[in-house]
Amino acid sequence: MTGDRARRDMRVLVERLYPLCRSITGDGVRATFDIVGEHLDLDVHEVPTGTQVLDWTVPKEWNIRDAYVKDASGARVVDFRRSNLHVVGYSVPVSATMTLEELRPRLHTLPEQPDLVPYRTSYYAETWGFCLSRRTLDGMGEGPYEVLIDSTLADGHLTYAEHVVRGRSDEEVLISCHVCHPSLANDNLAGIAVATALAGRLAGEIGRPRYTYRFLFAPGTIGAITWLARNRDRLGRIRYGLTLACAGDRGALTYKRSRRGDAGIDRVMTAVLRDRPHTIVDFSPYGYDERQFCSPGFDLPVGSLTRTPYAGYPEYHTSGDDLGFVTPSAMADTLETLWSAVEVLERDSRYENLSPYGEPQLGRRGLYGSLGGRSDTKQAQMAMLWVLNLSDGDHSLLDVADRSGLPFQAVAEATAALEGAGLLKRVGEDA
Amino acid sequence: MTGDRARRDMRVLVERLYPLCRSITGDGVRATFDIVGEHLDLDVHEVPTGTQVLDWTVPKEWNIRDAYVKDASGARVVDFRRSNLHVVGYSVPVSATMTLEELRPRLHTLPEQPDLVPYRTSYYAETWGFCLSRRTLDGMGEGPYEVLIDSTLADGHLTYAEHVVRGRSDEEVLISCHVCHPSLANDNLAGIAVATALAGRLAGEIGRPRYTYRFLFAPGTIGAITWLARNRDRLGRIRYGLTLACAGDRGALTYKRSRRGDAGIDRVMTAVLRDRPHTIVDFSPYGYDERQFCSPGFDLPVGSLTRTPYAGYPEYHTSGDDLGFVTPSAMADTLETLWSAVEVLERDSRYENLSPYGEPQLGRRGLYGSLGGRSDTKQAQMAMLWVLNLSDGDHSLLDVADRSGLPFQAVAEATAALEGAGLLKRVGEDA
Amino acid sequence: MTGDRARRDMRVLVERLYPLCRSITGDGVRATFDIVGEHLDLDVHEVPTGTQVLDWTVPKEWNIRDAYVKDASGARVVDFRRSNLHVVGYSVPVSATMTLEELRPRLHTLPEQPDLVPYRTSYYAETWGFCLSRRTLDGMGEGPYEVLIDSTLADGHLTYAEHVVRGRSDEEVLISCHVCHPSLANDNLAGIAVATALAGRLAGEIGRPRYTYRFLFAPGTIGAITWLARNRDRLGRIRYGLTLACAGDRGALTYKRSRRGDAGIDRVMTAVLRDRPHTIVDFSPYGYDERQFCSPGFDLPVGSLTRTPYAGYPEYHTSGDDLGFVTPSAMADTLETLWSAVEVLERDSRYENLSPYGEPQLGRRGLYGSLGGRSDTKQAQMAMLWVLNLSDGDHSLLDVADRSGLPFQAVAEATAALEGAGLLKRVGEDA
Repeated sequence: MTGDRARRDMRVLVERLYPLCRSITGDGVRATFDIVGEHLDLDVHEVPTGTQVLDWTVPKEWNIRDAYVKDASGARVVDFRRSNLHVVGYSVPVSATMTLEELRPRLHTLPEQPDLVPYRTSYYAETWGFCLSRRTLDGMGEGPYEVLIDSTLADGHLTYAEHVVRGRSDEEVLISCHVCHPSLANDNLAGIAVATALAGRLAGEIGRPRYTYRFLFAPGTIGAITWLARNRDRLGRIRYGLTLACAGDRGALTYKRSRRGDAGIDRVMTAVLRDRPHTIVDFSPYGYDERQFCSPGFDLPVGSLTRTPYAGYPEYHTSGDDLGFVTPSAMADTLETLWSAVEVLERDSRYENLSPYGEPQLGRRGLYGSLGGRSDTKQAQMAMLWVLNLSDGDHSLLDVADRSGLPFQAVAEATAALEGAGLLKRVGEDA
Repeated sequence: MTGDRARRDMRVLVERLYPLCRSITGDGVRATFDIVGEHLDLDVHEVPTGTQVLDWTVPKEWNIRDAYVKDASGARVVDFRRSNLHVVGYSVPVSATMTLEELRPRLHTLPEQPDLVPYRTSYYAETWGFCLSRRTLDGMGEGPYEVLIDSTLADGHLTYAEHVVRGRSDEEVLISCHVCHPSLANDNLAGIAVATALAGRLAGEIGRPRYTYRFLFAPGTIGAITWLARNRDRLGRIRYGLTLACAGDRGALTYKRSRRGDAGIDRVMTAVLRDRPHTIVDFSPYGYDERQFCSPGFDLPVGSLTRTPYAGYPEYHTSGDDLGFVTPSAMADTLETLWSAVEVLERDSRYENLSPYGEPQLGRRGLYGSLGGRSDTKQAQMAMLWVLNLSDGDHSLLDVADRSGLPFQAVAEATAALEGAGLLKRVGEDA
Repeated sequence: MTGDRARRDMRVLVERLYPLCRSITGDGVRATFDIVGEHLDLDVHEVPTGTQVLDWTVPKEWNIRDAYVKDASGARVVDFRRSNLHVVGYSVPVSATMTLEELRPRLHTLPEQPDLVPYRTSYYAETWGFCLSRRTLDGMGEGPYEVLIDSTLADGHLTYAEHVVRGRSDEEVLISCHVCHPSLANDNLAGIAVATALAGRLAGEIGRPRYTYRFLFAPGTIGAITWLARNRDRLGRIRYGLTLACAGDRGALTYKRSRRGDAGIDRVMTAVLRDRPHTIVDFSPYGYDERQFCSPGFDLPVGSLTRTPYAGYPEYHTSGDDLGFVTPSAMADTLETLWSAVEVLERDSRYENLSPYGEPQLGRRGLYGSLGGRSDTKQAQMAMLWVLNLSDGDHSLLDVADRSGLPFQAVAEATAALEGAGLLKRVGEDA
């Protein structure tokens, strides 16, 4: 189980990242990596504005210092310093005096959630605007208002970071999470925190893992596209992948299958989630960066793990996705689930039963209770019988867990016992 | 939507056809084709009695002028002029005086539906008889009765008709409906009317369609067998086929799969019916002429479309299947469904995404809203993402509609937009 | 239907076998074969202690004459003569005086079923013990007690028996039931009785069957392993197989699939059970001797038929599995089900429709009612249409029964009628 330390670390990390104004480029992303970098060695990449990446071009870099709508009394009716959600992401600079009527087309609210501030962006069409609660808007007089957005949109860089845990094999497990959202806790600071904790646990608990684990922290869409463009010749190494988002809300886990639908990661996540409350949904070309990884030209074996899925909760992309919306318990549960997946990845193999004609006599080898007739056979014995029965070189331990309904862990332990007794031999290459 | 004109035309056609005494041969069939021929160019075929057709022989031609059972007062207790259902189809001529006791074995009723007259035939065993309501029978005294059937059963012809809409391809879509039933409105005057309207609409709305559409109007069983026997060398052209019957009752649509179960027509009809109330059933070798088209030697890709299926309503094969049993709305709904199928047939193709690595930047091409963050993505955008994601040359638009759950029409429109933007290329030959 | 005679025979057989003290070796097994041998010709095999059989070694032979726990008054508190379940199977001899405290670790009870005596064995770890009801144990004073087990565990033989019904083909149907349990009626005297009755019926009702039927009566696990070891070069002949157990309780039938899951026997039993109350479960490597037959080295097409399955009732492996627990009706139902399976095995074949283009005209051949229009088509006519439609050389009669939902028997009868009319030809070899 995830210890108190890991829970506290994840909580603290989310709290520290929450105030930063992130976007798809800019200093907020860099500050985020500075903090994550206190936990993990990060390779931070800076890609210049204008770089062609697949069908896209790296956009100008956006930074912002302040923004507000001030009333005649000088009071900040809308104030970037209170929440960075108040400014439409990628707003161009503006300094003007406007009546409410003039300003209104620039003001975004959620009429059906009057107390919440929406999250809006306009990366590829230059514009500006403010987001505020309906309640605030309703309280505004006709003005005039002093309007300021002190931002810059200029040539610069797109920033992303990688952390790699080298394994015995070059084959990779990719864990990707988007880092472009400002003060939204579940989407996706919780994902960043869980990924960071998972990377730390990998380093701490497994010497040199079987696979190489690559953690990618990148802005959504353009970041994944940039990374894909710069790593095309290495994508064949990706054997399993997950995008990780919405990792901290109180809902049950949701796994979204890869485009292939029957990739290894799909089987692994299905097995890992089997005995937990969960939902499994088919791939759709919407959501997080699985859209890019699973575009038809790449078609990578990448699924998506969330708790409540993309756009599945009322607080989604609003100021309601705040620090209170995520819990250390939920993040710990996400982390445990990922760790179970790592255990499957590290341990799954095919075996050959070396005594395949009839059952081998387990009792003689001390593997079976001697008193017969009892009907309450234990899970450990069932696991041994299943492993022996299906170890014909064609079935992996994951197959055994699937077909038997037993936990993978019990199957793996039975396998170790049988291998120790000389009854099993591993088949095929590592991985 | 089917216009008022089409509804009226179908209603009028059913009303005009209803009084005719059709059977598997004879002048009633010819009169039927005269009327249908006012709407469509028909090729009418006459096949002589005695012609060997597959395992069968074209029977003698049957015609009838009058028939009755008269009581002592001269009143027609049973009167062919009131309903042609009163005579067992293919009855040989008779003129006799009989007591009720002598006559009774010739009288067919429906004891459990005492007000209805059953529909009975005896095509291949020479006999005669009358059909009447149980109520009428119960009111009959012991006679004697004057019994007359003024029919002829003699060498002649079997008559069937075809209407063909030439397409760009020789591959054919076959729409077949049986024309052998006398005054039964749903089974199958509604089918004839809907087929006639569909043929008219094809000529009116599509210049030269992709496929050649062949409409077959033939008596049940022996008509289909005759047509199959005479067209064996051309059957390979049939790429899709439907038998059409019971097209006008108030029940929901029923599609019965082809014998193959996974023929193209099965997929098309499943897609077309998905968002309507409907039932889909597996093939069985009973019902309408799909029995013949799907016999194992031919095994054609022919399914069957009805509303309430064969023998599925109490009025089936009784005088209750009258003009009040069918409605213009139901016929219009059947027609619309067939039209949706035509649209799929005409439009379905495989495409290749020309920008398959990552998503292409739709915003730059004016295909995507510029303001991000909103979660209420529209169907049109989802359709574009799905088409792009699945257009790898292996998936057709129908596949996209299936997997996405989106209407075929939305998928087709998204495809047109993406093709217009140079993002898609059609793959493979026409059809 | 199973006649009164068969029911009585099965009941009497169970009653005669019930008192015998069977184990995996010894005279109780031989006495059992003497009684079964009054009904069937049995080949009885004796395999010496120490013989290597697959991964196992034939153990010493165990025999027992008497056993008891006597109190100070000389009363037998626990008495082997009352029930052979009172002694742990394979107990080594003992003669001692012990306090209850000393004796207690040797006493096995069922605390949650205080009136029942458990069934326990210790074949491969030399020990001794008694089984008694909790109620009895609770009534025992502190002793001392005179404890006797007058048994022998010494070099001898393992005994198993076969009965073979020779067929036209060398391919075999294996029916196996375990004979090692002492006074347990459902597990497995009912199985022995039903197998015996089935063998008798095969000889009586079928001259020379299509397949060779081999009935194996052997102790559980070690008996099956011994048989497998001695017949390895003939196992390829087994085309269908069943282990038969728990054949007489009041529960519905349960079929457990073979390891393959799609073996012929799996299809046959699914078809046979379709119209009866039943449960079908997937293979698991636990239960009866299907564990051995379906070990991965053999992977034989052997399923398991029971009523309430292994360990599925509270009386399982207790004194509650007594003569009142099994009923002649239940045994007769199991027998009928097996007989239906035999009928499928004997009759199933693929046929070719010799008139595959359109339907053949059945009426002309006297196979079809002449009066048309009626919608209450009979099962016999539907069966003919289905057989004709699917007889393309690829589908067997079992396929026809599956797809049509008609009973196999109806399909077989239709096939005979059509074959008689020259419309069908059998395809391929016998069996």
